[in-house]
Amino acid sequence: MIEIAQKFGTPVYVYYEDIIRRNYQEFHSAFEERYKKVKILYAYKANSNLSICHILKQEDAGADAVSGGELRTALKIGIPSGSIIFTNNSKTEEELQLASDSDIIVNIDSLDELQLLWKISNKNKRKGKISFRINPNVDPKTHAKIATGLEESKFGIHIENDLAFNAYKLAREMQGIEILGIHMHIGSQITEVSPFVDATERLMEFVLRLKNRLGIKLRFIDIGGGLGIPYKGERVATPKDLANAIVPVIKKWNIKLGYEPELWLEPGRYLVGNSGILLCKVQSVKETPIKKFVNVDAGFNTLLRPSMYNAYHRIQVLGKENESKSNEKYDIAGNVCESSDILAKERKLPRVNVGDIIAILDTGAYGFSMSSHYNLRPLPAEVLIRLNGSVELIRKRESLEDLFLHQKVPEDLER
Amino acid sequence: MIEIAQKFGTPVYVYYEDIIRRNYQEFHSAFEERYKKVKILYAYKANSNLSICHILKQEDAGADAVSGGELRTALKIGIPSGSIIFTNNSKTEEELQLASDSDIIVNIDSLDELQLLWKISNKNKRKGKISFRINPNVDPKTHAKIATGLEESKFGIHIENDLAFNAYKLAREMQGIEILGIHMHIGSQITEVSPFVDATERLMEFVLRLKNRLGIKLRFIDIGGGLGIPYKGERVATPKDLANAIVPVIKKWNIKLGYEPELWLEPGRYLVGNSGILLCKVQSVKETPIKKFVNVDAGFNTLLRPSMYNAYHRIQVLGKENESKSNEKYDIAGNVCESSDILAKERKLPRVNVGDIIAILDTGAYGFSMSSHYNLRPLPAEVLIRLNGSVELIRKRESLEDLFLHQKVPEDLER
Repeated sequence: MIEIAQKFGTPVYVYYEDIIRRNYQEFHSAFEERYKKVKILYAYKANSNLSICHILKQEDAGADAVSGGELRTALKIGIPSGSIIFTNNSKTEEELQLASDSDIIVNIDSLDELQLLWKISNKNKRKGKISFRINPNVDPKTHAKIATGLEESKFGIHIENDLAFNAYKLAREMQGIEILGIHMHIGSQITEVSPFVDATERLMEFVLRLKNRLGIKLRFIDIGGGLGIPYKGERVATPKDLANAIVPVIKKWNIKLGYEPELWLEPGRYLVGNSGILLCKVQSVKETPIKKFVNVDAGFNTLLRPSMYNAYHRIQVLGKENESKSNEKYDIAGNVCESSDILAKERKLPRVNVGDIIAILDTGAYGFSMSSHYNLRPLPAEVLIRLNGSVELIRKRESLEDLFLHQKVPEDLER
Repeated sequence: MIEIAQKFGTPVYVYYEDIIRRNYQEFHSAFEERYKKVKILYAYKANSNLSICHILKQEDAGADAVSGGELRTALKIGIPSGSIIFTNNSKTEEELQLASDSDIIVNIDSLDELQLLWKISNKNKRKGKISFRINPNVDPKTHAKIATGLEESKFGIHIENDLAFNAYKLAREMQGIEILGIHMHIGSQITEVSPFVDATERLMEFVLRLKNRLGIKLRFIDIGGGLGIPYKGERVATPKDLANAIVPVIKKWNIKLGYEPELWLEPGRYLVGNSGILLCKVQSVKETPIKKFVNVDAGFNTLLRPSMYNAYHRIQVLGKENESKSNEKYDIAGNVCESSDILAKERKLPRVNVGDIIAILDTGAYGFSMSSHYNLRPLPAEVLIRLNGSVELIRKRESLEDLFLHQKVPEDLER
């Protein structure tokens, strides 16, 4: 690891290919062993690095895409259009056009959007393949910023007041629209199964209503993503726990339904979160009357989660894993000029020195993908540790010139 | 404005050159009328677009730079090195080398950093010009994430326990180090003058101590930036208020000092905040049992402040400024797949329709500069409205290809 920091510079994200593959296989088999027809769609927003998307495609994952950029990525790497779902609360006309042109399933979030897709599909003389994202009104017991299935959330169409029912009814009447499924996504970093069980119950009850009242038979039910990972090494629900909890619910309702829809899932963080490590370098150690700060060369421009969600990531001082921890606690301070830019708070670590390499663990998901140029810093490099142990650069570090590339200064201002 | 959205697409940041110039002139004259030697350094982190930095250079602003990227920007546009100060809690060796090579003033944040600069300066056979950032331990009464002068902050060297005093004493003994000034910065978006007064008192008391005890005479005192702007149209402290409050404090201490240091200030938000507008387009309007959502084509990838700091920005529906507001309240929802991505909450607006252009006001500072590719969206365009009313594109919209540019996929993964 220290050699990677030396060779590629810091800050740098490092991913383990074997962990990504193992995570996928664990997730997939947990469900496949319990349910006949299972499809896993990788949530690209967690980490849309092309090499990582390719790895998961080789494992047979489809794509949960949330933007034109992610749709194009999925198409570029060769995911079949029937295994790409396009989910977002605010899709543009260009994005819907792309989805229609490529036969991608559009996960409809509002009636306005349904109307627009219908128009585009008719003009395009292609069936618009859709599911609806419904809002199941369930508390996922996670950080408020990433709870997406609460009734006040911006996402999905509510079951209440027959809103979702009427949406399906309307779509059924639309020439050029083909209803394929139903979707929900209740949040992110969920560490227990009960919110999934509650939400699945509501979803399946509604699916039965669609069958009985509207004669609608769905190809798939998509219960979204959201399974958490143990950032502190704690015990959290596993894919097996999740499958054990929700598959019986689905099977119970399938009996009443009289058919067996495919079960689709959209893990993101679970597949890549623990595969990634952010390496950064200690620039200085500062003692104040209150605290000891370890100043590193990454900040919330590199890893936003601690500042944005108060997220916890484990910290290692490379080469000192076996040293006993000092009695001092350190704050790992980022290099962004804002006080919230503390990457880890009050950690007992071995004695830290200038030049040490700090590893911030479990940063494979929502790490690079949320990074920015704030404070005018180029984006970091990304490196992949292959199955055979070799190390490959999969994203070159940006240069400052890249940040000037798109700018044009009016001549008279340069005088 | 609607034509700008049509011509350049959305989302797009629009800046008014005249407002930037007027803000600078107001800020500068407020202090110059009250104090002999004043220097205004623009805080590039607020918005480091090259054209904006050029405008402020034409107005005679120096540069407050926080990274190698901002240092290079200041040098590129021709700011004299004596008017560039480099402030950051965690500077890299490369950054300090650049500062030394270019004779830029390094605002030292820790003893480790002082040692490193000293080594570099001696190797370089150049004087390392420095100030120290001190921590005045003052509550700026602003959002916790942007309060930077509290005693638990990562920034600066504390006056307490003689830490700052000993730092100056050490630097005074160092061959190759030249002490030029002292610096503080207590926070951002501060709307009253009393925290500045308190901090300036503490700073000046310390400056007198440096003179009396160490015989150190400073070329400048830099009281940083942080003056807020009225995001809700409320009455907040103006540059004149600030000058009226702190100049007498400085003059009072100057008598005891026996000399008159230059007064340096580092406004960022004040100079550019109200000069910018973010334009975005309504994709859909969705009614839920709880709320009405206006879904737009910008999100916290475009403008982070509402999600990160719970910041308030005024909203206008273009072309409907004179329509009476409907009785309904709208949430303006961004297009990022997280529930925290609400750009404005519960706003009374005229009836909003699909295709309307929404203007998010006062987004000239910490808007584009904090933007990211999250959800794999290219960065927006930036446009400048010139003094003569003409409109110029100053940053081209990114393309998706730009996001793939630095990536390299190992061959065997593409199979």
